[in-house]
Formats: sequence, C-alpha cells, structure tokens
Amino acid sequence: MHSVNSHVCTSCVRLLPFVSSAFKAFIGHSVRIRTIRNLAMYQAVERGSPNTSDYRIYFRNANGPISPLHDIPLYSDASKKIYNMVVEIPRWTNAKMEINLKEVLNPIKQDTKKGKLRFVANCFPHHGYIWNYGAIPQTWENPEVLDEATGCKGDNDPIDILEIGYRVAKRGEVLQVKVLGTVALIDEGKIFRNLNINLPDPLADQLKDITDVEKHFPGLLKATIEWFKIYKIPDGKPENQFAFSGEAKNRDFAHHVIDDVHKYWRSLVKKEAEAGGISCANVTNTDSPFKIEQKDAEDIITKSPQPGPGQPIEPIVDKWHYIHLK
Amino acid sequence: MHSVNSHVCTSCVRLLPFVSSAFKAFIGHSVRIRTIRNLAMYQAVERGSPNTSDYRIYFRNANGPISPLHDIPLYSDASKKIYNMVVEIPRWTNAKMEINLKEVLNPIKQDTKKGKLRFVANCFPHHGYIWNYGAIPQTWENPEVLDEATGCKGDNDPIDILEIGYRVAKRGEVLQVKVLGTVALIDEGKIFRNLNINLPDPLADQLKDITDVEKHFPGLLKATIEWFKIYKIPDGKPENQFAFSGEAKNRDFAHHVIDDVHKYWRSLVKKEAEAGGISCANVTNTDSPFKIEQKDAEDIITKSPQPGPGQPIEPIVDKWHYIHLK
Repeated sequence: MHSVNSHVCTSCVRLLPFVSSAFKAFIGHSVRIRTIRNLAMYQAVERGSPNTSDYRIYFRNANGPISPLHDIPLYSDASKKIYNMVVEIPRWTNAKMEINLKEVLNPIKQDTKKGKLRFVANCFPHHGYIWNYGAIPQTWENPEVLDEATGCKGDNDPIDILEIGYRVAKRGEVLQVKVLGTVALIDEGKIFRNLNINLPDPLADQLKDITDVEKHFPGLLKATIEWFKIYKIPDGKPENQFAFSGEAKNRDFAHHVIDDVHKYWRSLVKKEAEAGGISCANVTNTDSPFKIEQKDAEDIITKSPQPGPGQPIEPIVDKWHYIHLK
Repeated sequence: MHSVNSHVCTSCVRLLPFVSSAFKAFIGHSVRIRTIRNLAMYQAVERGSPNTSDYRIYFRNANGPISPLHDIPLYSDASKKIYNMVVEIPRWTNAKMEINLKEVLNPIKQDTKKGKLRFVANCFPHHGYIWNYGAIPQTWENPEVLDEATGCKGDNDPIDILEIGYRVAKRGEVLQVKVLGTVALIDEGKIFRNLNINLPDPLADQLKDITDVEKHFPGLLKATIEWFKIYKIPDGKPENQFAFSGEAKNRDFAHHVIDDVHKYWRSLVKKEAEAGGISCANVTNTDSPFKIEQKDAEDIITKSPQPGPGQPIEPIVDKWHYIHLK
C-alpha cells in the first residue's frame, strides 16, 4: 500500500489474515471530537483540513506524541495473542488513508495519485472497504527478505489487517484484535501482507480460527476475495489473483507471519536493516538510535498545519462501478 | 412506509418503478450548509437536532415555506415526462426518514418504532439503502381505491421512488427524474408503490426503459429484489414477496401508475376524498380548501424546534446482518 519503495515482484503475494477483536475496553466510540479524540490509551490528533493533502492524523499516548508505527506495541496482551490495530480506513469509506512511512512520527494521511487525493472505487455491490482496514504496529515487511510461504519479498510496509466486528471504527482508532487467519492476494505483483479480520465483543469468544468466519459471517470470505480481485479494475488495473488458490490460511499461519514481520520491524528500528526512506523516529524504543525527545516530537505536531474545516469531496467519488468478471 | 392508516391487504403490492434522472440543473451538490441548503428552486430547512425525534426538514421555495407533498409539482417537465422526486433516504444510509403526512407542511422526519428512532437493518452485502430513496410529490395511494394491476388498495402514502444515478443525493434534495419501470413488492401485506430507479446526467440519455437498467447496471435489479425481500428479516418480520413473479414492468406501465396516484392526490387536496389524518395544508393549490397563507406557513417553521447539534448514534445501527434465504 504505502508505496515507499519500488521493490516489485511479479509473483508476490498479499496476505489477508483474519482476526477477531477481543476487547473494546480501550476503544472510544460514539461522538467524534473534532481535533482530538480520546481513545483512552491513545489519542488521534487531527491536523490540517480533511479532504486536502494537508490533512494528517498524529497520535499521542498519555505522555505525548508517538509514532503509530513504532510506539504502539505489537501486542495489547502478548499472553493471549491480542494485537493492537491502527485503523486507517473505516468500513464503508473509500478515502485511501494510510500511515505515512516517510514523514516523521508517521501520521495517517491520504494517498495521492497524479496529484489528486486517492479514493478507492466502489465496486457494486460493495460500498467502500467492507471491513475496518488498517495496520498492525511494530511490523515491517522487509523488502530484502524472501518470504518462505509465498516466495516473495516484503513490500516495505507494516502488515495490513481487516477487522470484521459489527462496529464501524473511527479513523485513527487503536483496536485490540484477535487473529483468525489469512488469505493471500497477489496485488499488482507487489508483496503485501494484509492482516486480519477482527471481531468485537459480542462474537469474539465464538471466533477462534478461520473456519469460524464463514460460520458467523456467511459470504464474507468470498466477498473479501472478490473485493480484492476487482477493486483496482475501475482504475484501469488488471484483476488481482490469489495465492494458495484463494484458500484461507488459519490462525497459526497468520501468527507466524506476524512474528516474522515484527522481527523485521525490530531490526529496522534498531538500524540493523536499511530503512530506505522510512522515518524511524520514535519516542519509546530505548534500544533504537532513532529515538527522539518528547519535546522534539511535540514540535513536529505543533509545526504541522492547523486544523481546518473539511473541504467538499467531488460526487464522482461515490460512483458505483459495475465490474464484469469473466 | 408512512404508516398513517391501518388499511392492510394480505395480497397487496408495492411497485418499485425505475426511472432515470435527466437533469441536475436545479440540484445543488457538494457542500452541505447546516441549516438551509440552497437547492436553487427548493430549499431544505433543517430544524431540531439530527438523530432526535425533534429533527425535521421543512421545505421552501422562492416565496416561502411549502409542503413537499402538496406544493412541489408532480412534473418538472410534463412534456418530457420528467418528474420531481423528494429525497428522503440518501444511498448508503439507513435512517428511516420520510415525509410526515400528519404534521402541517409535511416535513421529513425519522420514523420511530417503540419510541426509538428507526434505522433499517444493513443486510450483507448491502449497506443501507442501495439507491437514493424518496417520494414523488403530488401523488397519493388512495386506500379506498382498488388498483387494477395488483388487486390491492392504496397504502395512503405518496408513491415511492428509487433513484440510481452515480451521485449520492442529499436528504431533502429535489431531483428531476425519468421513469424507467417498476417492480412490484408485497411488503407486509400493505399496498405500496415504490417508484423508480433514476439516473443522472452521464447515462440519462442511454436509459429509456426498464431493459436498459440491466444493461448499464448489471445485477442491480436482482439486488433490488433481494434487498426488499430480506430487509425486514433482522427485525423479526417474514421475507417479502414480489408480484408479477418479480418481473419488472416497463416505463409505460410506471407512467400509468403515476398518472393514477396523481389524480388521487388531486382529489385529496381538493377535499373530494377522505384525508384520514393527512395534513393537506398547502400554499400553492388555489383550488384547495386546505390552502393556507404564507404567513401562517412561516409561523409553523418558526415555532418548530431550533436547529441543534447532531446527537450520537448507537454503533449497533451499523451492524451487518447475515441473512440466510432458503
């Protein structure tokens, strides 16, 4: 996604693991507060004007600004394998928001294409993204490392995640999620690992592995595969393909993938791997040469554009595209 | 929809004609202005706080307040069979908003059920209503008149309409639409006539009749029928059925239906038919005994609740329901 580098491999694969969010204890819901949203442990700080290239979401914890990529821990509860997830794209929306790898503190911003803000096409019958979409912090798909399962190199991004709980999350929310499994997408030949479908409280206990997804969400796995196959067709791109014949891999497989990319991130933030343009500035990793002072982190947010009113979006962004698959 | 009376007929049918909106000339788009939206010929005036039972949308034309039911003409252009449509429920939303028949000036308000604001369940893979949904002004399904095609009596409502253009309309917008056809839904045994799938500029010229819908929107007719079949199942209601074996009727059929219900409305507003609790107050129909003065109409809006901030909506409203059809 966050196309920072140009490592491209025509046989590469994007894994889409499925998880179940176990707890909402730390998740704010209901009212959206304009500039700062209180997410208990983490706050999302909006800067600039929504729907402009100035728009950013920075993150804070109780002590001050943090990087969502480097300073939010991989696990919310390691003993129970509960992961943190940073929400980039809420369900049923299509603004292509992502953790920016190049900018200091890695704020969420909207991807651009040919100088215009990027919106992913709505492909009938789907509206926007059909899950809450985001990334697992403290992960990195090392473009120099060959993945055993797929025979592909990393895409230089944190690992992606699909959250399937009943609630539409907020952009910049940090969710606590449980991994259910993964499917492997070949997306424009790049290596991607999309991570997880997650579930909130009511069903979380009943969702333990990939087989539970079809049981409780009949049709969602099929729709997920269809969605990723066709979503770039309206932009003139070819249909995407899936590895493993589109078969979903289970929870344990997904856990192993996450373990690997967490290790790669660790080597990145410790400067043992080549960062290739990624800003590794962080405030909490004491073993990282990229650690910066709280004061300097505060300066970065202060100097970013002031919050402003949301700008109008062109109605064409809502167009429903009708795709014919052969 | 607007369940004002209790005329129920177990074999009754809701017609869902399809149209194509021909022009956007009078339709404001882009920015939403909080209290009054300038829609050129018609303005939607929001009162009360969104997401409360106080919330209303009143309507004005250049001269002052109007009733959207009685004072917006049936036709935008009679010679070309271009109709007006009042948008109640924008595509991809699920708040059950409707022109209120009982209140003076017939503002749009949210339907309630057991004292709670009503939201229609999201049934996977659909999100909210899958068209812009609304009513054709100056129509009325007379509950005393037997419809020839369906053998059912009217449901005491204006005729419904589905608009299928690429743009998501605004609540309270008045669109100019072209009728393409209709499908007939048996909905809880009530008589309904849902009217139209419409289209905006880019495709309007290519859409002339019902057969053009499948050509340009493959799958939408099927999805429409599925949507109406299942949409009340999560609320504990049975699956709905379609008359004419679910077959869509053409443009001419739909035009005749609209002609009929326009005549019934005319008899209503002239007090030739029993109104049964419907407020017929209007400001433009000189042959109507219900015509009121501009000043009195102005008073009604002035005395309605002041605009207030939108209240939070419970996240459960966004739940995706997975329906198994036999």
